[in-house]
Amino acid sequence: MKQKLSIVKIGGNVIENESELKKFLTLFSDLDGLKILVHGGGKMATQMAAKLGIVSQLVGGRRITDAESLEVIIMVYGGLANKTIVAQLQSNGCNAIGLSGADGNTIYAHKRPVKDIDYGFAGDVDGINAKTISALLNSELVPVFCALTHDGKGQMLNTNADTIASEVAIGMSLLYETTLYYCFEKKGVLIDVADENSVVSAIDSKKYQELLDQKSIADGMLPKMENCFHALHHGVRQVCIGDTSMLEGVSALFTKITL
Amino acid sequence: MKQKLSIVKIGGNVIENESELKKFLTLFSDLDGLKILVHGGGKMATQMAAKLGIVSQLVGGRRITDAESLEVIIMVYGGLANKTIVAQLQSNGCNAIGLSGADGNTIYAHKRPVKDIDYGFAGDVDGINAKTISALLNSELVPVFCALTHDGKGQMLNTNADTIASEVAIGMSLLYETTLYYCFEKKGVLIDVADENSVVSAIDSKKYQELLDQKSIADGMLPKMENCFHALHHGVRQVCIGDTSMLEGVSALFTKITL
Repeated sequence: MKQKLSIVKIGGNVIENESELKKFLTLFSDLDGLKILVHGGGKMATQMAAKLGIVSQLVGGRRITDAESLEVIIMVYGGLANKTIVAQLQSNGCNAIGLSGADGNTIYAHKRPVKDIDYGFAGDVDGINAKTISALLNSELVPVFCALTHDGKGQMLNTNADTIASEVAIGMSLLYETTLYYCFEKKGVLIDVADENSVVSAIDSKKYQELLDQKSIADGMLPKMENCFHALHHGVRQVCIGDTSMLEGVSALFTKITL
Repeated sequence: MKQKLSIVKIGGNVIENESELKKFLTLFSDLDGLKILVHGGGKMATQMAAKLGIVSQLVGGRRITDAESLEVIIMVYGGLANKTIVAQLQSNGCNAIGLSGADGNTIYAHKRPVKDIDYGFAGDVDGINAKTISALLNSELVPVFCALTHDGKGQMLNTNADTIASEVAIGMSLLYETTLYYCFEKKGVLIDVADENSVVSAIDSKKYQELLDQKSIADGMLPKMENCFHALHHGVRQVCIGDTSMLEGVSALFTKITL
């Protein structure tokens, strides 16, 4: 029987709020079993870029990563955000180790080809190195991934943190029984966007099709749901979507997604 | 018999010069056996701080690390410098993994007590976690340390890269036969500071005393030499000082220091 492994992704809104981050990191530290954290930090990078006089360009919510922006992203994601999180986890007795995809060649990618839009130094993930990540877990370390990958030719690449989380979960599913947690600002998938508590507690393929047919899933939620089912179709056991309280235990509201 | 382990420290002058860095990283990648890299990045941090309008204060060559400067140092050392090096090593087929002292609790320190000068968030090393570093080496990873430690209570600390290199070498000497390499801008310890080629090829305790008696060691070299003998007195087998060509092989000029 495979060991259980939790992959938890937190968004920028948690990282940028000191008390929220502290609360989350305590919950994450208390989480039983093998675990991996994946974090973003986009807003923090945008703020730092502004301080340096660099204008961040976003198209459809995605950053155009020119050379200057990439430098800021490497500093903020790989440096400030990652080390702040790792040091706090260490203070909770959680033996965290911060990683970009270049570290141990854990996540390799290629520069996104230019079609309609040139995203610059944006990376599309080709694969993960499950053996190396597993070796870290076996050394009782807790990997903390920032949203950076590399192309194996010396180039760092900016990669969506949701994608990193799902790709890591998929890649690790060969060796572990994986659960992927997406922590965001809402309590889960809502049946009524105006009602924060209208959380759908369980979604499977059939229910998902029903929700799609009823057009009950908010536009912003659609890519996230597609990402979830992509992960489930590639070996991930279950995906949980909710706010950080989802890590507290059975009582919290959140959405559990399975095939 | 203990396995051999090389700990190589490079200074900011190598990191900041793209072609020098590339040359060095090729030599480092080709180095046989188990190895660890330690890098600084002070000048790069000073430049980034200036871009952000932060004035870097140095007293006796040591940085006063206030909260703002620490943020820049974490970004530059842990982010930009570390990931640039790791990605380049990966492209050379060297399976590098970037680390601060917080990562895996590999290097723990305390904030330097205020005496005459308040150095701010400067860390004095208390110890290293040889077991975790050894686990990484056993996983065929090459640790790349930046000049950051942590206090175990959530605080990152700025720590001299020379000190990190010697403390890592000392700590690893329990498990390995260690050689510590200090790569800097000169070819080694010079008998005549005006002559770049007047390298003393071998120094032991007796020779060191002679050089001290003759006042033949330049003032700037004294703390480095003290650091070297401190390491040798605490289990490090030998220390080599020279420029990057010292890693090329037997033909290069450099200074080998033993007890």
